[in-house]
Parts: sequence; structure tokens; C-alpha cells
Amino acid sequence: MCIEKLKNEVDQWLYEYFNNKGTYNKKLYEAMAYSVNIGGKRIRPILMLLTYKMYNEDYKDILPAAGALEMIHTYSLIHDDLPAMDNDDLRRGNPTNHKVFGDAAAILAGDGLLNEAFNILFRESLEKGEKWIKAGCLIGNSSGADGMIAGQIVDILGENKTMQEDELVYMHSKKTGELIKTAILSGATLAGAEEKDLTLLKEFGEKLGLAFQIKDDILDVVGDELKLGKTTKKDEIQNKSTFVSVYGLDKCNDMCCKLTEQCIELLNNIERDSSKLKELTLFLLKRDY
Amino acid sequence: MCIEKLKNEVDQWLYEYFNNKGTYNKKLYEAMAYSVNIGGKRIRPILMLLTYKMYNEDYKDILPAAGALEMIHTYSLIHDDLPAMDNDDLRRGNPTNHKVFGDAAAILAGDGLLNEAFNILFRESLEKGEKWIKAGCLIGNSSGADGMIAGQIVDILGENKTMQEDELVYMHSKKTGELIKTAILSGATLAGAEEKDLTLLKEFGEKLGLAFQIKDDILDVVGDELKLGKTTKKDEIQNKSTFVSVYGLDKCNDMCCKLTEQCIELLNNIERDSSKLKELTLFLLKRDY
Repeated sequence: MCIEKLKNEVDQWLYEYFNNKGTYNKKLYEAMAYSVNIGGKRIRPILMLLTYKMYNEDYKDILPAAGALEMIHTYSLIHDDLPAMDNDDLRRGNPTNHKVFGDAAAILAGDGLLNEAFNILFRESLEKGEKWIKAGCLIGNSSGADGMIAGQIVDILGENKTMQEDELVYMHSKKTGELIKTAILSGATLAGAEEKDLTLLKEFGEKLGLAFQIKDDILDVVGDELKLGKTTKKDEIQNKSTFVSVYGLDKCNDMCCKLTEQCIELLNNIERDSSKLKELTLFLLKRDY
Repeated sequence: MCIEKLKNEVDQWLYEYFNNKGTYNKKLYEAMAYSVNIGGKRIRPILMLLTYKMYNEDYKDILPAAGALEMIHTYSLIHDDLPAMDNDDLRRGNPTNHKVFGDAAAILAGDGLLNEAFNILFRESLEKGEKWIKAGCLIGNSSGADGMIAGQIVDILGENKTMQEDELVYMHSKKTGELIKTAILSGATLAGAEEKDLTLLKEFGEKLGLAFQIKDDILDVVGDELKLGKTTKKDEIQNKSTFVSVYGLDKCNDMCCKLTEQCIELLNNIERDSSKLKELTLFLLKRDY
């Protein structure tokens, strides 16, 4: 099974989930569906599915969890793009949510997606029990006030000030790293992986998340706006501290390569077929979007 | 046990929950705690606790659920008050969240509170099992895109247009009614109430929620800004349809009284001591804030 096929399944699941929903609230669902269906690499759901597949072939059972995680990621982008936050007009090559639906609807669409993710996780927990509750705990913690949102607030407060290295690492490990790590850990948890593997996968997730963010910072400087589908050099304009502004491009490239090597080594310690996870890890290092 | 004491316990639980939290994300927790601790009637948690107490005296066991529900209510107020939404400067007699912390932090504080509510519900579900998962499902559905947020979007889209009666009822049953109903239903569910009672309580919750919103609309017109702690006559200024604009004050007062009577009757059909729930129901009718 190739990664592209998994991506298509996630796309399809999300598309169907929001298709033709709503009555008087139709506009809300349209706004939610707009950002969800606009695409994206689907890295988090794919990471979850690939990790799960190392232990259990029936990956379709956890498509709702993968979809829920992508909804959380999408809501965070909608709110992040708002004029009151990063004020972005372009996302994934298209107008941002508030540019299409207005600020109020975009706020509500974000709220709706976050809420919907938890609805899915609770619904599945009621039917399928403890592993799902555990996944719900993991996902909720990673997206919450000590997770992704913690990274967002530090990011916002960090405008126009020079950040120390520990705060920068904190910000990124929260803002991007948490959901990446949790994609992997919740996939393994849903598959019932043993403690030893969970420990290795946690470390793998942390390093992959960090590499992912460093690469994002690199692409914000050297990347092609058309390929990335978003405005570049925003961090510089907003005078934000990034890995590149702190370490420079060369060191960032080195860090990225080193972290990727460590990721591969960690996967080698798991007695499962991790070839697809490795493939994705290497893709994330080499990507230009 | 008087209702006032329950309110104090909810206040205390919420205060302690957010006390001294955060490191680099301290500002986020401050913003979350600000709106949570600023007070309010705590109607929803009290309704949950009183319903639970009809079946089980150990109401402290469900304080986390009551607190979670209040967090969801609070987040909805923070986002609702934003300049992009209702643009309110005053809430519960104090400056609104974005007036104190800025729009970006207010958006994140709202997101954080919604997320935290689900974290609590998942954590308790992991420890305490099925009743809590069911409560999580109920609460999530009532706050989500087919619940409270559905009401919000209809409210937003309804500015400067005359709403038909069915749409108005839809809006209010979603925007306010859903959380009120769910406070009651989830309290009963957590207590393990039987199906017959759940059916009666559902109807009670629907009628109480409707009465509550009609009363809110009345107070928006005739209420004292100081007592209410918020700007009045906003609906008129924003040219929004309300029960008062559609039915007039007299009919609204009649509707409120009739619904309250029906609520009391429904409670009379439950073979439990519902005296405190009745007391609260009558208070909600007579309140001037």
C-alpha cells in the first residue's frame, strides 16, 4: 500500500464526513468543509495510519481518529490565519477561510472542527472502548493549552522580540511537534502496541516533529510560494524568532539531516516493518512544500 | 444543601483548576482563568449537579463534568464577544477577554477552554468508564456544529434580516437551549438515571432552555445594564430578530410563565425529590440578571 493511496483515503473520508451536512447551519458546515477539503499533505493522519499498520492491517478502523486529528490541525490553521492572529490571505494555494466566509464564520468553523474532532473520538470510544479513550486523552492533551495552543500563544507573544533558544524549542515542540508526536503515539495506542515500542515511538515522534518544524522554517526562507501554497517570509516580516533566524540556514539543514538519521535509527529498534514510516520520514526531510 | 453553596463549590473548583498553571504559556492560562473566574450564575453546572443529586448524593464526583460544561459556556462567550463577532466590551460587569488580553489571546483562550473541557471528560472517562463517555458524547454534541455553534452561525447570519419563527426557535434552541438541556441530561446520565426519567428530563431541559432564552431576550430590552453586567439592547442595535421583536414583551412574559409551569409539571412526574430543581426553575423565571 503506497502512502499516496492512504492520503486519498483520508481525503475521501473527510470529504464524505462533511458532505451535505446542515440545515439552517449549512453555512457553518460549508466553512468547515472548505478548509478541510482544500487539501494539504495530510501528514498527521498518514503518520497515524502508517504507525497503526505496523501492528494491524485493518487501518480503516481508525480512519475516524485520523480524520479527527486532521480536523484539529485544520481548525488551528483557520484560527492562525485570522486577521487577529497571523493575518494570512493564502493557505494551500487558496484564499484563507476568513477571506471566503468572513471572520465570524471562520472563528466558528474553527470551533466547530475542534469540537467535531472530539465528538468523533467520544462516539468511537463509546463503541470501541479503552484504546479509543486513551487516544482521545493523547490527542486532547496534544492539541490543548499545554500542547499546540501553548505553542500558539508563545508564537503570538514572541512577535518583535528575540526569543531564547529554550523558548524557541518550547514553542515549536508545542506548536507543531505535539500533533506530529501524537499522530504516531495514538496510532500505536489504537493498535495496542506494547510499552517498549510506545517509548521508542514517542522519541521518534519528538524528533520527527522537531525536524518537521525546522524544515518548515527553512522553507519559509528559501521555499517557493507557489509550491508551498502560502505566503513565505512571513516570520521575517513579523520579526519572529525561527530556527533559521537563530541558527542560520546551514546549521538548520544539518540539524534536519541529523534528526532524520536519529528517527531512522529509532525505527530500526522496533521489530516491525517500518519501511513506510521511514519512507515518509525521508520525504519530510527532502520535501520542497 | 442550598443552591448558593453548590455555586460556591463550582466557583472554587474552577478557581483551583486554573490556579498557578503554565510556564511559557502562562499568559494563555491567565486569559482562560480570567473569564472563568469572573463569575456568572453558573446555571449549567448547578443544573447538572442538582439533577445528579436527585439520584446520588455524592455530587462532588461530577464536579469535573460540571466544570467542563462551564468552560465550554465560557469559551463561547469569549468568542462571541470578539470584535469579529458581537464586539462586546463588557461581560459580567468586567471588560471582555479581548479587551484585557487582546484579540489573538482571546481566540486562543477560547480554544483552550473548549479543548480543556474535553480533556477533563476524556481523563474521567478513562478512569470511570461508560457513564462518563456517554456524558462526553452528550456534551460534545450539544456544544458542536449541530448544537451551540449552529445557533451562533444562524445568529451571525441573522443580522439585519427578519427571521422566520422556525428559524428563530432553531437558533435559540441551539445557541442557549442545547447546553441547558445537556447540563440536565448529562447530570442524569452520570447518575445512571433510568430511561423513563431521561425522557422526562430531556423535555424539561428543552422547555427550560427555551424559557431561559426568552427571559434573556426580555432582559435585553427591559433589564438593568448594571445588574446584568453586560451591554443591553444590543439585539435591537444590531437589528437581530429576538423573541421580543417577533412576539412583543407581553406574549414573551406569558410564554415564559407557561413554559415554567410545564417544567414544574414534568418534574412532578419524576419520583425523586426535585424541589431544588424546581427552586432553580422558578428563580430563572423571576431573575432580573
